[in-house]
Amino acid sequence: MTDMAESESDVSTDVSALPMLSHSVSYTSIQKPPFVVSVIGSGNWGTTVAKIIAENTRENPLLFEQKVRMWVYEEEFEGSNLSDIINTEHVNKKYLPGIKLPDNLVAVPDLLEAVQYSNILIFNIPHQHLEKILSQLRGNIDPRARAISCLKGLRVNLDGVELLPDIIQDALGIHCGVLAGANLAQEVAEQRFSETTVGYPLPADYKPGDVDHTVLYTLFHRPYFHVHVIEDIAGISCAGALKNIIAISVGFVEGLEWGDNAKAAMLRRGLLEMIKFGRKFFPGCLVSSFTEESAGVADLFTTCTGGRNFKLAKIMAQTGKSAHEVEKEILNGQSAQGLITAKEIHELIKNKGCEEEFPLFETTYQILFHGVRIGILPYMLENKWSISKPNYSS
Amino acid sequence: MTDMAESESDVSTDVSALPMLSHSVSYTSIQKPPFVVSVIGSGNWGTTVAKIIAENTRENPLLFEQKVRMWVYEEEFEGSNLSDIINTEHVNKKYLPGIKLPDNLVAVPDLLEAVQYSNILIFNIPHQHLEKILSQLRGNIDPRARAISCLKGLRVNLDGVELLPDIIQDALGIHCGVLAGANLAQEVAEQRFSETTVGYPLPADYKPGDVDHTVLYTLFHRPYFHVHVIEDIAGISCAGALKNIIAISVGFVEGLEWGDNAKAAMLRRGLLEMIKFGRKFFPGCLVSSFTEESAGVADLFTTCTGGRNFKLAKIMAQTGKSAHEVEKEILNGQSAQGLITAKEIHELIKNKGCEEEFPLFETTYQILFHGVRIGILPYMLENKWSISKPNYSS
Repeated sequence: MTDMAESESDVSTDVSALPMLSHSVSYTSIQKPPFVVSVIGSGNWGTTVAKIIAENTRENPLLFEQKVRMWVYEEEFEGSNLSDIINTEHVNKKYLPGIKLPDNLVAVPDLLEAVQYSNILIFNIPHQHLEKILSQLRGNIDPRARAISCLKGLRVNLDGVELLPDIIQDALGIHCGVLAGANLAQEVAEQRFSETTVGYPLPADYKPGDVDHTVLYTLFHRPYFHVHVIEDIAGISCAGALKNIIAISVGFVEGLEWGDNAKAAMLRRGLLEMIKFGRKFFPGCLVSSFTEESAGVADLFTTCTGGRNFKLAKIMAQTGKSAHEVEKEILNGQSAQGLITAKEIHELIKNKGCEEEFPLFETTYQILFHGVRIGILPYMLENKWSISKPNYSS
Repeated sequence: MTDMAESESDVSTDVSALPMLSHSVSYTSIQKPPFVVSVIGSGNWGTTVAKIIAENTRENPLLFEQKVRMWVYEEEFEGSNLSDIINTEHVNKKYLPGIKLPDNLVAVPDLLEAVQYSNILIFNIPHQHLEKILSQLRGNIDPRARAISCLKGLRVNLDGVELLPDIIQDALGIHCGVLAGANLAQEVAEQRFSETTVGYPLPADYKPGDVDHTVLYTLFHRPYFHVHVIEDIAGISCAGALKNIIAISVGFVEGLEWGDNAKAAMLRRGLLEMIKFGRKFFPGCLVSSFTEESAGVADLFTTCTGGRNFKLAKIMAQTGKSAHEVEKEILNGQSAQGLITAKEIHELIKNKGCEEEFPLFETTYQILFHGVRIGILPYMLENKWSISKPNYSS
């Protein structure tokens, strides 16, 4: 891997006709347009985001290098390499079948080749692969690059909460933001109207010409995909993780047929606990990120009206089966993220002695893992749940 | 109508066993407990709220006179007077069949008799009957009484917006708050878990012992009906009216099968326009009333997942029929409140020259009444909707 021109000769003939990286690149230069963008990950959301980006780089040649490289974990699909399929047929047949991709989007199976000379790295891989990818990238990227994480969730342990963009930032030494919203990948890929939120505080070493809110807006916004750029990474990240617990509580209520009022009540109480959690563990995060952003209230709305967590809880309530039984029987071995998050959050808030501030999260955990009956939820939400501390009020 | 003891002799034998008003009453006394409570209106929501109140007055005899009078617009049902049915069978067979009412809830067909000596008046009648009821009450109530309006909506005209509690207050000279939330009446009546919001700023002539947030909480809160008391009447009222326009926009998107992302986007954008509208016409109203209260985000969630406005818009989108055709054919002559509100709000914001600040409301109006196609919504939400003012941004 020496320079882009050589590395590209390995790719299919279709791709060889693409524009080469047109500006002079150097690891020590100040960030300035046109920016070179790489997407790390090519699942259904990764490919969808890469499609959006490639549409925008083509329309904004002064701001972006048109060619967008997408790292593909190479695998065989119907007798061919997935990267070859993407580069010749311009469809990710395995993870996003039926969606035509722009021909300036190039699949690259070599991770380091995919990111070489990039100024903007978009992370879009499953959470559990992050460590490995980061260790491969360490020392092999432009140290002045900027990053956006499209990964879901938080890293929670007994002592606290880490944001995934901070983990990326700490591992690679590059400034990292986040993108999240009410974004079912298939709908976005089909160009059905959606909105999203990008969280990106300007870095301490920001200088004019560097990646800023306008650059990110231009990179992600499409007529069918509306972008709002804010500064609050923590609020977006907390909302994205905690929504799954709330979807479970709403699913319980749905399964017991308590009605629309009760579902709305769970959603509302969940939203308040989200905000309380965010503000407790990340004092700088903003209430409006939860209440006014696509990554907040809109994503919560979507998550609480369907999806795996909602469905698992609904079936638990209908059948009386345990969470793990339902997960095994109904979800075909797929895990419901809300189960893991509910447990992690319980362990954290118990360790911190603040379970009583989060009666919805805590009661949902107790129902999921300790056979507490769902009917106790309204009682818990009145903050009468702790017999040992009867005078508690939030 | 001379005093309570005489008037009660007209009511059925069951009721004669009820406790009489037990404290000395006078129109000139300072407000103090026990408070006498009357409910004006006995539709399904009126009867449901009266049921809640009667449950609470019975449990809190030091704070409230146990007997709760509910004014019933007298009509015949299955050969009997509705008030007699309620007082003998303790069921409102016409408007809330199948729900047992507490026997300390007494139906009174005479409006002035129903409110005599009352300290707390709960208004729960259809919007269109308000003027007439107010003119009958004027001069015939305790001038120191306090009121809560459970009526929906706003009074909108070309020059501005009036809050219904203010209309009650101006007509009767009594301080008036509001109660609203994600409250489908039937679910509350069946004691399925719900939440609500009460808006009640303390009046200027408040003195200790008067109706306050604790009194109102105790009057309305039940284990199955959780109450949050705040001060912001305007926020609650605006949310209650404007949600119906948003439900129409979500219904359009549902009818065109744009998917969950788009529905969440409409809800979110609608929420933002609600807030903007509230703050514009009532600068003192709080963002949190919209984003954190049952009367705000929770009621919006419920309204946008079902109900008459959502359904009307969905069918319009599916069939291409006009709003009025759908209203006539599908809703059995019932009106969709969102249609009226969309038109009233359009006329107001047009008159004020601020349509461009409310692209969702305005575009929804244009689709409803002027045959604009639904597909233009995303474009409108990018604030490119006005050709004459291309540089507009919100």
